[in-house]
Amino acid sequence: MEHVSHYACTLCGAAYEKTSTHLTCPACGEKGILDVIYDYDTMRKQVDAAYFDSCTERSMWRYLPLMSVSGDRAGESLAVGWTPLYDSLRLAGEIDVAKLYLKDDGVNPTGSLKDRASAIAVLKADEEGHRNIACSSTGNAASSLAGNAARLGLEAFIFVPERAPSGKLTQLAAYGAEVISVEGDYKDAFNLSKAAIETFGWYNRNAAINPHMVEGKKTVALEIAEQLAFDVPDYVVVSVGDGCTIGGVYKGFYDLLQLGLIERIPRIVGVQAEGCRPFVDAAACGGELIECEERTLADSIAVGIPRNPKKALRAVRESDGEWVTVTDEEIIQAMQTLGAREGIFAEPAAAASLAGAIRARRDGVIDKAARIAVIVTGNGLKDPDTAKTKLPPPTKLPPDLDALKAHLKHTHDKEDTE
Amino acid sequence: MEHVSHYACTLCGAAYEKTSTHLTCPACGEKGILDVIYDYDTMRKQVDAAYFDSCTERSMWRYLPLMSVSGDRAGESLAVGWTPLYDSLRLAGEIDVAKLYLKDDGVNPTGSLKDRASAIAVLKADEEGHRNIACSSTGNAASSLAGNAARLGLEAFIFVPERAPSGKLTQLAAYGAEVISVEGDYKDAFNLSKAAIETFGWYNRNAAINPHMVEGKKTVALEIAEQLAFDVPDYVVVSVGDGCTIGGVYKGFYDLLQLGLIERIPRIVGVQAEGCRPFVDAAACGGELIECEERTLADSIAVGIPRNPKKALRAVRESDGEWVTVTDEEIIQAMQTLGAREGIFAEPAAAASLAGAIRARRDGVIDKAARIAVIVTGNGLKDPDTAKTKLPPPTKLPPDLDALKAHLKHTHDKEDTE
Repeated sequence: MEHVSHYACTLCGAAYEKTSTHLTCPACGEKGILDVIYDYDTMRKQVDAAYFDSCTERSMWRYLPLMSVSGDRAGESLAVGWTPLYDSLRLAGEIDVAKLYLKDDGVNPTGSLKDRASAIAVLKADEEGHRNIACSSTGNAASSLAGNAARLGLEAFIFVPERAPSGKLTQLAAYGAEVISVEGDYKDAFNLSKAAIETFGWYNRNAAINPHMVEGKKTVALEIAEQLAFDVPDYVVVSVGDGCTIGGVYKGFYDLLQLGLIERIPRIVGVQAEGCRPFVDAAACGGELIECEERTLADSIAVGIPRNPKKALRAVRESDGEWVTVTDEEIIQAMQTLGAREGIFAEPAAAASLAGAIRARRDGVIDKAARIAVIVTGNGLKDPDTAKTKLPPPTKLPPDLDALKAHLKHTHDKEDTE
Repeated sequence: MEHVSHYACTLCGAAYEKTSTHLTCPACGEKGILDVIYDYDTMRKQVDAAYFDSCTERSMWRYLPLMSVSGDRAGESLAVGWTPLYDSLRLAGEIDVAKLYLKDDGVNPTGSLKDRASAIAVLKADEEGHRNIACSSTGNAASSLAGNAARLGLEAFIFVPERAPSGKLTQLAAYGAEVISVEGDYKDAFNLSKAAIETFGWYNRNAAINPHMVEGKKTVALEIAEQLAFDVPDYVVVSVGDGCTIGGVYKGFYDLLQLGLIERIPRIVGVQAEGCRPFVDAAACGGELIECEERTLADSIAVGIPRNPKKALRAVRESDGEWVTVTDEEIIQAMQTLGAREGIFAEPAAAASLAGAIRARRDGVIDKAARIAVIVTGNGLKDPDTAKTKLPPPTKLPPDLDALKAHLKHTHDKEDTE
């Protein structure tokens, strides 16, 4: 990996050798999250427009020459990435923008964008000789780690808070992960995972800690750019929990800009739920993050103490983007819209991205001439309970031919006119 | 579509013009399911090895020149197909075969192989000028039709038996389908759908009726062949409900054989649940199908009166294949194995394919030198309740560092040794 230069601390700026294996800055401690810094001159020699024309790999690993993992076993990995970017057929007009692209990351192997981070995590662990890998999470990070670890033959240890809903454990059971159910809340689970990781020398997949997670997640931005022939949209809209995903989105476009493959970084719009909006508040108050409650049904972005604040706030600031909030009602409405108008079933946190785009357009944050890309981060099948209880049930028509005739006559003409 | 020659009735053999729009044989009635017959001489001029080398489309639509739809709007469709074919890393050795390939069709847009049929159905409907499309189903066919219709802007009418579990309606609600909940069982739902389709002139997506559904489903076989560089496996194993999917698998390989792209059709192994095995019994008794009970947790293959018997029985017979049955316990075991050993979470009917492969190997039906491909037809997230109640919960470790140390010491060495 000669294209990797070194690591730099996002807090103090200190530089560390690329051969170092500590995941955060020893000087700043746990909050000293590192950036992977590339040697773009070297990278440029391998990665240009011709590289993409000739590359036949159709997964996130087509971007290996832009990543911080050797990828010797990439061919054995789950088929993560290269997800569809849909050109909206009806919705662009309905929400009144020039172009609306929908990046459906819910079709990843375990059903969410988190696969991009977990896939690089297991390769990185394997590369460094680990057989065990751990993280603390109750949601998509956990299930994606469990699935990706199972595929590569690594053992996954997942730390979850005791109150974790049993449904969330189903994928973990299917993938054969080992689960440590911790008394207390997410913070307690995180702390025990940290202690155990240190004690047992396991590989640490916590996205808040491990700089390679952003390097995996950035592939979603690389794909959006390439799928649009490097003519990037004006805005990219994504929902935000701990801040790692939006950090990855920025990093992907940043890399492409350094390589001269795109002319500008799209303005990045970070979307949070009204009931859990630490980044929105922090951005409004000079960047200071204050712990907040987690009052939203979009559980994947219900993060009261985000652990990747620097990268998230930087993504919006440096791209001249925006922060917006959406209500749970707007999220549910967006789930319906995305399903019924485009055929994409999104989990609440994923539909929040679309809700944010709609809100930003309505508030004039996004103008009508804009081309926007919305990232759908997870599959609706991940959270069937919310869909079942919050979405209106399907329209029911009378189960009798005559009644059906009368009904269709009175509502609208449902007879096909060939 | 000059490569389409005509339609032929699978019962009486009568030929019909390719411009005809009746979906079954007028002489034989509803049971006179049609085959789409191609002009392989014409097809061969367009489709050869060079075609695949140069084709950049990565979805089922790369096979449009082998299909019975013009595909003018294929570019607007959901991104169905071109799903991963995994080379098993550990399982081949464990079940003692030379090679085991796993075709993961659960990552299709609505989570199942049925998307291949629904995608062609909505294109075909659109091509023929329909704005409405209907089917009767409570499961994957229904949700895939709802999603694919939503994407193309068609209205979907889904006929379900009254007792359909509410969870199964969630995807229908998300995709905005209109649901007709029919008093009685599946047969009653099917009959009302038939009457309504005739009355209102809607497009009919019932797989048992519509010959194009098999033409969509065959793309799974085309992909398996191409992903193995046309060096096809010795066996292809797939679970069987109404018989349409296995019919499609056979048809795909049959086409490739006619085109000279493969040298033989793999032996096709049809898997049914012990508690619902009409095809297994029919094959053993000269082909006569007798209605049976539906006693299996693998709901997607719990079909007591399969409506596509001819094509299913032909697939196994003509390929010199086999029928096997598996118990529900074997299905659950296969779900665990597939998840924990390969990182693929399958719904029960999908895991039944692997269970069948294991059973067939153990019984000596498949020999140890064989290369086999197993089709995983649907995502485990489709049926979380079965996974939750039937899979053993994840292994729980003690939530305390000292206890964890003691536990790991006593069980096995979980410390990484770098």
